[in-house]
Amino acid sequence: MLKKKKDGEISEPSVKKIQFADQKQEFNKRPTKISRRSLSRSISQSSTDSYSSAASYTDSSDDETSPRDKQQKNSKGNADFCIKNIKQADFGRREIEIAEQEMPALMALRKRAQGEKPLAGAKIVGCTHITAQTAVLMETLSALGAQCRWAACNIYSTQNEVAAALAEGGFSVFAWKGESEDDFWWCIDRCVNVEGWQPNMILDDGGDLTHWIYKKYPNMFKKIKGIVEESVTGVHRLYQLSKAGKLCVPAMNVNDSVTKQKFDNLYCCRESILDGLKRTTDVMFGGKQVVVCGYGEVGKGCCAALKAMGSIVYVTEIDPICALQACMDGFRLVKLNEVIRQVDIVITCTGNKNVVVREYMDRMKNGCIVCNMGHSNTEIDVASLRTPELTWERVRSQVDHVIWPDGKRIVLLAESVLPVFHLFFIFVLSIIHALALIELYNAPEGRYKQDVYLLPKKMDEYVASLHLPTFDAHLTELSDEQAKYLGLNKNGPFKPNYYRSAAA
Amino acid sequence: MLKKKKDGEISEPSVKKIQFADQKQEFNKRPTKISRRSLSRSISQSSTDSYSSAASYTDSSDDETSPRDKQQKNSKGNADFCIKNIKQADFGRREIEIAEQEMPALMALRKRAQGEKPLAGAKIVGCTHITAQTAVLMETLSALGAQCRWAACNIYSTQNEVAAALAEGGFSVFAWKGESEDDFWWCIDRCVNVEGWQPNMILDDGGDLTHWIYKKYPNMFKKIKGIVEESVTGVHRLYQLSKAGKLCVPAMNVNDSVTKQKFDNLYCCRESILDGLKRTTDVMFGGKQVVVCGYGEVGKGCCAALKAMGSIVYVTEIDPICALQACMDGFRLVKLNEVIRQVDIVITCTGNKNVVVREYMDRMKNGCIVCNMGHSNTEIDVASLRTPELTWERVRSQVDHVIWPDGKRIVLLAESVLPVFHLFFIFVLSIIHALALIELYNAPEGRYKQDVYLLPKKMDEYVASLHLPTFDAHLTELSDEQAKYLGLNKNGPFKPNYYRSAAA
Amino acid sequence: MLKKKKDGEISEPSVKKIQFADQKQEFNKRPTKISRRSLSRSISQSSTDSYSSAASYTDSSDDETSPRDKQQKNSKGNADFCIKNIKQADFGRREIEIAEQEMPALMALRKRAQGEKPLAGAKIVGCTHITAQTAVLMETLSALGAQCRWAACNIYSTQNEVAAALAEGGFSVFAWKGESEDDFWWCIDRCVNVEGWQPNMILDDGGDLTHWIYKKYPNMFKKIKGIVEESVTGVHRLYQLSKAGKLCVPAMNVNDSVTKQKFDNLYCCRESILDGLKRTTDVMFGGKQVVVCGYGEVGKGCCAALKAMGSIVYVTEIDPICALQACMDGFRLVKLNEVIRQVDIVITCTGNKNVVVREYMDRMKNGCIVCNMGHSNTEIDVASLRTPELTWERVRSQVDHVIWPDGKRIVLLAESVLPVFHLFFIFVLSIIHALALIELYNAPEGRYKQDVYLLPKKMDEYVASLHLPTFDAHLTELSDEQAKYLGLNKNGPFKPNYYRSAAA
Amino acid sequence: MLKKKKDGEISEPSVKKIQFADQKQEFNKRPTKISRRSLSRSISQSSTDSYSSAASYTDSSDDETSPRDKQQKNSKGNADFCIKNIKQADFGRREIEIAEQEMPALMALRKRAQGEKPLAGAKIVGCTHITAQTAVLMETLSALGAQCRWAACNIYSTQNEVAAALAEGGFSVFAWKGESEDDFWWCIDRCVNVEGWQPNMILDDGGDLTHWIYKKYPNMFKKIKGIVEESVTGVHRLYQLSKAGKLCVPAMNVNDSVTKQKFDNLYCCRESILDGLKRTTDVMFGGKQVVVCGYGEVGKGCCAALKAMGSIVYVTEIDPICALQACMDGFRLVKLNEVIRQVDIVITCTGNKNVVVREYMDRMKNGCIVCNMGHSNTEIDVASLRTPELTWERVRSQVDHVIWPDGKRIVLLAESVLPVFHLFFIFVLSIIHALALIELYNAPEGRYKQDVYLLPKKMDEYVASLHLPTFDAHLTELSDEQAKYLGLNKNGPFKPNYYRSAAA
Repeated sequence: MLKKKKDGEISEPSVKKIQFADQKQEFNKRPTKISRRSLSRSISQSSTDSYSSAASYTDSSDDETSPRDKQQKNSKGNADFCIKNIKQADFGRREIEIAEQEMPALMALRKRAQGEKPLAGAKIVGCTHITAQTAVLMETLSALGAQCRWAACNIYSTQNEVAAALAEGGFSVFAWKGESEDDFWWCIDRCVNVEGWQPNMILDDGGDLTHWIYKKYPNMFKKIKGIVEESVTGVHRLYQLSKAGKLCVPAMNVNDSVTKQKFDNLYCCRESILDGLKRTTDVMFGGKQVVVCGYGEVGKGCCAALKAMGSIVYVTEIDPICALQACMDGFRLVKLNEVIRQVDIVITCTGNKNVVVREYMDRMKNGCIVCNMGHSNTEIDVASLRTPELTWERVRSQVDHVIWPDGKRIVLLAESVLPVFHLFFIFVLSIIHALALIELYNAPEGRYKQDVYLLPKKMDEYVASLHLPTFDAHLTELSDEQAKYLGLNKNGPFKPNYYRSAAA
Repeated sequence: MLKKKKDGEISEPSVKKIQFADQKQEFNKRPTKISRRSLSRSISQSSTDSYSSAASYTDSSDDETSPRDKQQKNSKGNADFCIKNIKQADFGRREIEIAEQEMPALMALRKRAQGEKPLAGAKIVGCTHITAQTAVLMETLSALGAQCRWAACNIYSTQNEVAAALAEGGFSVFAWKGESEDDFWWCIDRCVNVEGWQPNMILDDGGDLTHWIYKKYPNMFKKIKGIVEESVTGVHRLYQLSKAGKLCVPAMNVNDSVTKQKFDNLYCCRESILDGLKRTTDVMFGGKQVVVCGYGEVGKGCCAALKAMGSIVYVTEIDPICALQACMDGFRLVKLNEVIRQVDIVITCTGNKNVVVREYMDRMKNGCIVCNMGHSNTEIDVASLRTPELTWERVRSQVDHVIWPDGKRIVLLAESVLPVFHLFFIFVLSIIHALALIELYNAPEGRYKQDVYLLPKKMDEYVASLHLPTFDAHLTELSDEQAKYLGLNKNGPFKPNYYRSAAA
Repeated sequence: MLKKKKDGEISEPSVKKIQFADQKQEFNKRPTKISRRSLSRSISQSSTDSYSSAASYTDSSDDETSPRDKQQKNSKGNADFCIKNIKQADFGRREIEIAEQEMPALMALRKRAQGEKPLAGAKIVGCTHITAQTAVLMETLSALGAQCRWAACNIYSTQNEVAAALAEGGFSVFAWKGESEDDFWWCIDRCVNVEGWQPNMILDDGGDLTHWIYKKYPNMFKKIKGIVEESVTGVHRLYQLSKAGKLCVPAMNVNDSVTKQKFDNLYCCRESILDGLKRTTDVMFGGKQVVVCGYGEVGKGCCAALKAMGSIVYVTEIDPICALQACMDGFRLVKLNEVIRQVDIVITCTGNKNVVVREYMDRMKNGCIVCNMGHSNTEIDVASLRTPELTWERVRSQVDHVIWPDGKRIVLLAESVLPVFHLFFIFVLSIIHALALIELYNAPEGRYKQDVYLLPKKMDEYVASLHLPTFDAHLTELSDEQAKYLGLNKNGPFKPNYYRSAAA
Repeated sequence: MLKKKKDGEISEPSVKKIQFADQKQEFNKRPTKISRRSLSRSISQSSTDSYSSAASYTDSSDDETSPRDKQQKNSKGNADFCIKNIKQADFGRREIEIAEQEMPALMALRKRAQGEKPLAGAKIVGCTHITAQTAVLMETLSALGAQCRWAACNIYSTQNEVAAALAEGGFSVFAWKGESEDDFWWCIDRCVNVEGWQPNMILDDGGDLTHWIYKKYPNMFKKIKGIVEESVTGVHRLYQLSKAGKLCVPAMNVNDSVTKQKFDNLYCCRESILDGLKRTTDVMFGGKQVVVCGYGEVGKGCCAALKAMGSIVYVTEIDPICALQACMDGFRLVKLNEVIRQVDIVITCTGNKNVVVREYMDRMKNGCIVCNMGHSNTEIDVASLRTPELTWERVRSQVDHVIWPDGKRIVLLAESVLPVFHLFFIFVLSIIHALALIELYNAPEGRYKQDVYLLPKKMDEYVASLHLPTFDAHLTELSDEQAKYLGLNKNGPFKPNYYRSAAA
């Protein structure tokens, strides 16, 4: 489906080939950037190997047979899955157990709602990163009464051992690390195209699953109660469909919830930037000069963490409001070319393209680390480094040394680093997913129409409140008098709906 | 107009007396809290003296004659003003010059727009705190071509020496520290009710000036091009008028701009909480236990500053989203009663009422400081401390010791402390005011109707951009390719309008 | 004794005039720098008025009669003191009460040792800054049984109202703000030269008192049990005397205790740099560029505070170890000339001379604040600014604007700012003083010889332990097994003596 | 040599068996704790597998043959080494190259001193952790002219692939991960006991190498010019020898240098605590409650890092001075039992024993992480967890789950975690080692006697200065006038020798 050109860049035309001929009316309207982003979610082209938890080191000893050519069964004889190696299930189980420790809200929901089975009868088809955290979500959905079939939304991000544990646990999972493009769509199809089973809920991350059903099995939508979509890209597609009058079921945009924006971006990035850089490069942060491109929530998290570790941090921004915030937070606001010669680390988190171009990389000093923290891998112009005079050396998983003729080397972490480093962004997200599914599945007739909805403010607050017990945090309750004074319901919502989005 | 009861509390009935009989239709609809807030902006009832800059210490030697009974002229013979003492003009001038150093954006605007005089012909009547920062604003408006007449929006906050400098500079100012309620309205009336001069623009902080014109000189609105309103209260009143179909000119709500929310609240409070507490109590922050009630922007600023100074900070919250943010920022979330016995400092910034009640104050330890950082003085139940067994001792301006029968004393900073501590909140605000006035004054017919408008996103960004040069901050510009990729205009706005408001 | 030259600089020769002819043998050996430091402690030559707490604003209305020409008695008829105005006693008492809140360790000692009166019979003559904190110390010494007579160690730093309160309380205090040099020595002499009273303990800050007794009343040393000396200068003098074999009583160097170094320097400066700059200049710290000269404990405190407030901080250093610490703490290490054009604030805390010279000040930008946080006022070459083309304008107490011919002005806080800003450095110091006095006074014959002693490590630990209860801090005790394992006594000392001094 | 008892605890008697019968005179004097510490450096008894860099995951596929039974040659035919697998050399070389990026000071020294070969003729025998950083040190020593033979000072910490790269590069290395006790001494002996080669310098970490030569080849000391010793334990042994008059060559104690104390402890731990916990447990720090036992340099680093990540941090201390510092830095000082039920993470860095005992672990909540950051593994009473009712589960390298009968599990990182997490402590140390070796090797006759020396202050400063260029840090130089004023040499040392040690 996708063709890599020799230089690793994906040509525009090949992008369009993903789309079916008959769907052009709405999808052609997507701006170029969306196509690109979408791709970047599915396939990170510059990597030869990819995401690795500690666990995946064992993969090197794996055989090279395609999972599609293997016959595997779990210990109960079930064979309705396709994964790398069912034998890794025990190891995957331990990873899931560790993840459970860090997902108390979901575990609480599992416990609380288990009696009433709010998803009894739900048949959920999902397409997300397949990680230990996703496994905790799937097992929770199952505990709440749902049946699940699942594929990966990214050809590299699957934790094989987790997929094995899920398969062993009876889930129909179709995913492995290092799928080809053909594998990718084949897996999605295997989730959906089952005799005697039809999904009534969709959980999607990137819109590829929704897209596939739209095109191949449009009749399925008759039984589908709703779509929960997480990604910017997928949400954009849904709004396009809605505008074009072609959205035939209610959809929930969970990307723009406050809890998601704050916790997945600000707080998670504050930790994962350190962790990611340390694991891949062993760099020491104290005293290092770092430039962070972009001062949105991700950039704010990165800057705060690096400042705390004793780095000297510069920021680039295009938006004067974010720029002024950077100033007030104590970061020098510069243009990239002002500091490019002196910095030790360059981090991109703009959501933009070609923020770090060849010209800049030519001027970096020896040993400079270039790291993409943005959601897409467009920020660094990696293609421009695929020229004959530069030597590439893969030194660790995710880490390339690019070596100039004079011996200068830069350390490149070019792939979409957020999912690479840590799939933390499931921390809050999975509970939002679960609640959104429950809401859409149980909503009375007429509450939701064929439109795209934001997560209700009150549910956003509920998501937050589910996390409080793990911090032993005690919420204050309004007195009647105070509630009246403020004009609020004592149980919330506590902020108007227009407070939903994070400040610039 | 307002009657203080003996214990310093203002009774509800007296509040209503502010309103004219014939205006009840819309103003009666205001919820109680708004009345109270409005009052708190105009009059802080528990203080016997009030705001004091370093300068105001000299006031003690001033004579006690009411300014209304004095005949004063400035050095050019002009007598169209009413202030405490024209002789303080030189001192006030120095304070203004110091303020100019901290208001580079306004000074830049003054320089830039001086040639074109965008306010030529504007006759602005204003009602705000009268401080050095306001003076910089007024002199800027004048430099841009406007004529100004001004009264104070608060009977205590006027810096007399600044008012003197303004009068000396030819401004018609009617304000002094310690006005009576009657003085308050008399001053406003003197601004408006002039022979041969009619305002065509209103700048209001709290809505009292607007209110007065509405009731006494409704015909003036025929020539008025617009109202710029800063306060929560005043904005609320305007929306009420708009809903009731009684708003007869366009109005600009500048309270809800991002720059105002972020910079006045978060960043200013981060500095003013330390400054305010230090100046009034000389407390050392290191190692002190502090509870901050409320984790909005003000609370966030207070907490960050105190944490940095080595305090141990607890937070109380009612909103689970803010509560979870407090947790992730490293503060224990508690109920007030859990820590009230052990804390050294209690800070309120909830916007709520009776957050700190007598019961809590009875349990505080000796020497505990109780400080209100909220905009209104409702947060601490001061009235409950006006009981016979407690002794009050005013130890410094704004600082009372309240002494229990057993000798325990608490240190009370009960008044609306934000304006007390520092009128920093003019830092960004005054430039917003100036821009909003220019926009409304110059808007082509039809751009604004008889409605309440938010500051356009782009103007918000412009406000921010005006502050960047002072930080020697260099904004990055989008390339054409990048702008296209992001679907943005290269000159902004860079965020959708729904990004306007600060996150919960 | 000291002659100011017209340009405000004190000439070297005049320095020597302080010394008596017959004392040259040892004092002439002092290196120049020490003379200068000593002077800077006694007299800050560039100021025309000086230290001011809030209280001192009232002084402007005071009469101009010299205290030496006044006849004053306290309410009990006692006249053995010489101060500005006994009528300010009530106000001073309130200041002392506020200070008591912040000095829990001393108050605890007062309470604890009051029964046993460990200073019964002690006749202490003291020469220190006379502030509310000193008053708390003196009243504690008195409560422990001592008689006290006191003079000021600095001609500008006396809080007149505190001196009044002390006089009213029966203390023989000889000090006022704005003493002449003649007054300075006259006051010291009045403390010592009393009929029927002879001191047996000395508490000195700067060595001037010790010096006076040495020269004028050497026989007094026969009855003196010891000297407690706080300042670098005074300690240096004592070591010189000791080397020369002329020290005739034991002396305690309290300057180099760990608690003093850490708490007076690092922690106090962290707070007082913000407070001092804010009170004097109202500067907002967020986004400001600041260069801090010197990264010792004072510099570390300043840098940490400013970084936390959102300033961008540069550091200059001469010592590579401190320099590397600055790097690892996230500050760019520069030479002053690299950043002098761009910074908004320059802070000196090197202990060195001429760190900021005219050449640098010529290149500063308009509005730049130049602030001395060092103990002496040598760091800024103020004399170089006393040239005809520059205009000086005193805008507030301690704050001068120096104006260049082109209108550029710098804001100069040139005097020894530490005592100016806040006499916090008494926070820990006064308890150390008290303990050192008790130790020397009660030491058995032979424990201390005629030498200079450091505060015993164990007493240093005791000072720290006295402060713990105020923080509700619970110390862990070693088990017998653990003490044995570590080879420590369970009650300390917990560190070897060579841990005494702060790391480079 | 060492016998593990069944419960994993090493009995005291077995400790003594390490020592040779004829050496009891001095080594028997060592206090018990030192024996224990020494052991903990050599062998971490509670682990079944051990230190692992990313690289070592490949080891699982390795054969089980002992290296002593293998015949290996490097590509040049050299066989004078004994390591796990020479084939890993390429991988190890990449690890070394990455380490070089982070060791600029050593690389600078290598470049600078390469011409003059200051170690020409040096024959160095070393016994340290064998990691990529050590390899950079060894290759630098070699570049400076030295010959090196090396063994490991810890049976678990060797990075096999690095040892392979060294062997491939021609170094005689005798070390592998997972040596037996017999292997350990065999390796040391192979380094020393070579025909036709005799060492003239010793670099030791823990004293085992020195000890071995003392006992087996005492005549070797005739040609040995000096010992450089890094560890607390080894230094203690040397002081014992010196006291007993048995030290026959000069020794340099590099453990107590300022640069080592500050950079290895404070700054490295600030980073490695986050990295270590994240890699092993994936824990998210935001909002977590953590208790840090011990507030020395290591504790300070841990606390600062965790506070910055949004953890709520408690501290325990026995020393009131450190305790007060914790208070002033904003941490609640508690006894462990006050918070043990509520914390999510317990970190030990006291240097003490049995700080976390079974009783506490019984009361921890489910999922609590218990992590040792101290240099020795005595802090957690691991032996007390080896009881029948508790189940141990090794979930990752270095990570055990210990499971109570009720299902509660704690996550145990009990081994000496500093070397486990990251061998960062080589960051500064290796340059100190190199300089100390150069100094001792080149010192003129008589400069050093048969005693233990501290690193000269000036060399400490030189170590720091070597690191400055990598931070693009510009040191200020004293003018002649300033140097004279301060009484300093312009080239340092800048602090008196008593500033050497870190403050309590």
